[in-house]
Amino acid sequence: MTLIALDWGTTSLRAYRLDAAGSIVERRAGGPGIMRVDNAAFEAALEAFVGDWMRAYPDAALIASGMIGSKQGWREAPYCPCPAGEANLAANLIRVSLANGRQLAIVPGASYVDPHTGVPDVMRGEETQIIGALPANGSHVAVLPGTHSKWAWYDDGAITSFASFMTGEVYAALTEHTILGRMMKLDAPHDDAAFARGVAYGLEAPSALLNRLFSARTLGLFDRLSAAVLPSYLSGLLIGTEIGGALALDGRPPRVLLIGNPALSLRYSIAFAIADLQTDISPEDAAAGGLWRISRAARPT
Amino acid sequence: MTLIALDWGTTSLRAYRLDAAGSIVERRAGGPGIMRVDNAAFEAALEAFVGDWMRAYPDAALIASGMIGSKQGWREAPYCPCPAGEANLAANLIRVSLANGRQLAIVPGASYVDPHTGVPDVMRGEETQIIGALPANGSHVAVLPGTHSKWAWYDDGAITSFASFMTGEVYAALTEHTILGRMMKLDAPHDDAAFARGVAYGLEAPSALLNRLFSARTLGLFDRLSAAVLPSYLSGLLIGTEIGGALALDGRPPRVLLIGNPALSLRYSIAFAIADLQTDISPEDAAAGGLWRISRAARPT
Repeated sequence: MTLIALDWGTTSLRAYRLDAAGSIVERRAGGPGIMRVDNAAFEAALEAFVGDWMRAYPDAALIASGMIGSKQGWREAPYCPCPAGEANLAANLIRVSLANGRQLAIVPGASYVDPHTGVPDVMRGEETQIIGALPANGSHVAVLPGTHSKWAWYDDGAITSFASFMTGEVYAALTEHTILGRMMKLDAPHDDAAFARGVAYGLEAPSALLNRLFSARTLGLFDRLSAAVLPSYLSGLLIGTEIGGALALDGRPPRVLLIGNPALSLRYSIAFAIADLQTDISPEDAAAGGLWRISRAARPT
Repeated sequence: MTLIALDWGTTSLRAYRLDAAGSIVERRAGGPGIMRVDNAAFEAALEAFVGDWMRAYPDAALIASGMIGSKQGWREAPYCPCPAGEANLAANLIRVSLANGRQLAIVPGASYVDPHTGVPDVMRGEETQIIGALPANGSHVAVLPGTHSKWAWYDDGAITSFASFMTGEVYAALTEHTILGRMMKLDAPHDDAAFARGVAYGLEAPSALLNRLFSARTLGLFDRLSAAVLPSYLSGLLIGTEIGGALALDGRPPRVLLIGNPALSLRYSIAFAIADLQTDISPEDAAAGGLWRISRAARPT
């Protein structure tokens, strides 16, 4: 089986061509995320991005994960409830027929309902990265930092539960639309010391976030932190609060695997070190590995 | 002593005329907050709002509290460190001379530095409301809900410590500038049941706010809460988190005095009831009482 695999999110589209052993032979980045595809012309966007691959590899299977399977995407692929492993995800693939006679399989997102609170959580795209980044057995905790960070608990090949944290989006809203941002030099380079100070302050009392946020104003007001380092401080405060809150809810895992954006993963690994937790950082292209495993699991054996 | 007392904040100006016994004889609302006074023409704004009172009561003292004493106001009145009681605030009044030969006294804000973390906090205007609302002796906890809610601990006539919570401003930023607001009918009337559900969820795990916020998306996505009730749910979630976080930091007081906006105070009193805490709601015009007490304390005896 050779595979054309698409990681098709809200703001970006990446494509991978994999050989029969699951190795990436070729990769392409910079395609349009679903928000940049006008009039839902997804098939034209696919053709423009990897039409040459489809013609050159007429037997390759096609598979995509991410927001392309959302209501706003090409075709909605309903969430697969946890435990979500490659077999369950493969069994719930949605298939779209293309004008060239081929089919594109779309990976469903995953859902989890907290048994204590009854509150649901969802992910779409991250389930595929997790499947690609983790081994088929053992217990692991993976964290995917981002706009909505995901913490996922994984046992023997399946995501058993997960939780979203709105850390990245809250940071953007606070810096761009509250009094905190008005005292900040938002284009300043990252400052390690201010970031670490924020992480420690957030870790110390995650339950007081609504209060501790105000320190990003008062430390500026009292000239304790400069406008240039306040963004790093606030970023640290939010990430420290995320980590402190997750550990308070679910206990301390032996170590954590960080998956996703390398710069952000590095920042999280520093925050985890301040929390005295060891991290590994996943290689990029975890999505490609996940798409290959899910595609393979979907084949009749 | 008769008094013309001004509660002059960022968005509003209220004036009170008090008699020698400290009773309010006349009140006016609807004056321009400091942000609506162009070119810092504060004296003209004062004249326009209470010029007739100044002429009719030539012996009345003039005093103001609130953001009028900030850097963006008429004259900066440096923060008075805690413990802040009427005597300390009176000793730190700033005086502005007017063209008509009179003086306007401006109440300083209050500051507090947490002895454990070294992080400062500030209030400006609320110190005067607290002084006006609480008796001169005993131990009390006051909460002033708002854009930046203030929790104040008060002993024998002085504010001994306080903490700000950015609850109101975070609510505005989340509803107006994140994915949460996009699923909401923001002009819907308040919904008591959704509010209570949010309060309970926030109280239960205040350290997980960054995660629990996401429930305002998923409960909508799964049709568990309608677009019309999601704003009340999010409001409850944030207020419950504020209360849960403050209680986790500082323990449970026997009861709490709510000061300020009546509608918001009522909403907080419902949230406190869910947290099993009794509240009293202060009469409006607490600022007038505080201004009278501070003004009296400033008089040579």
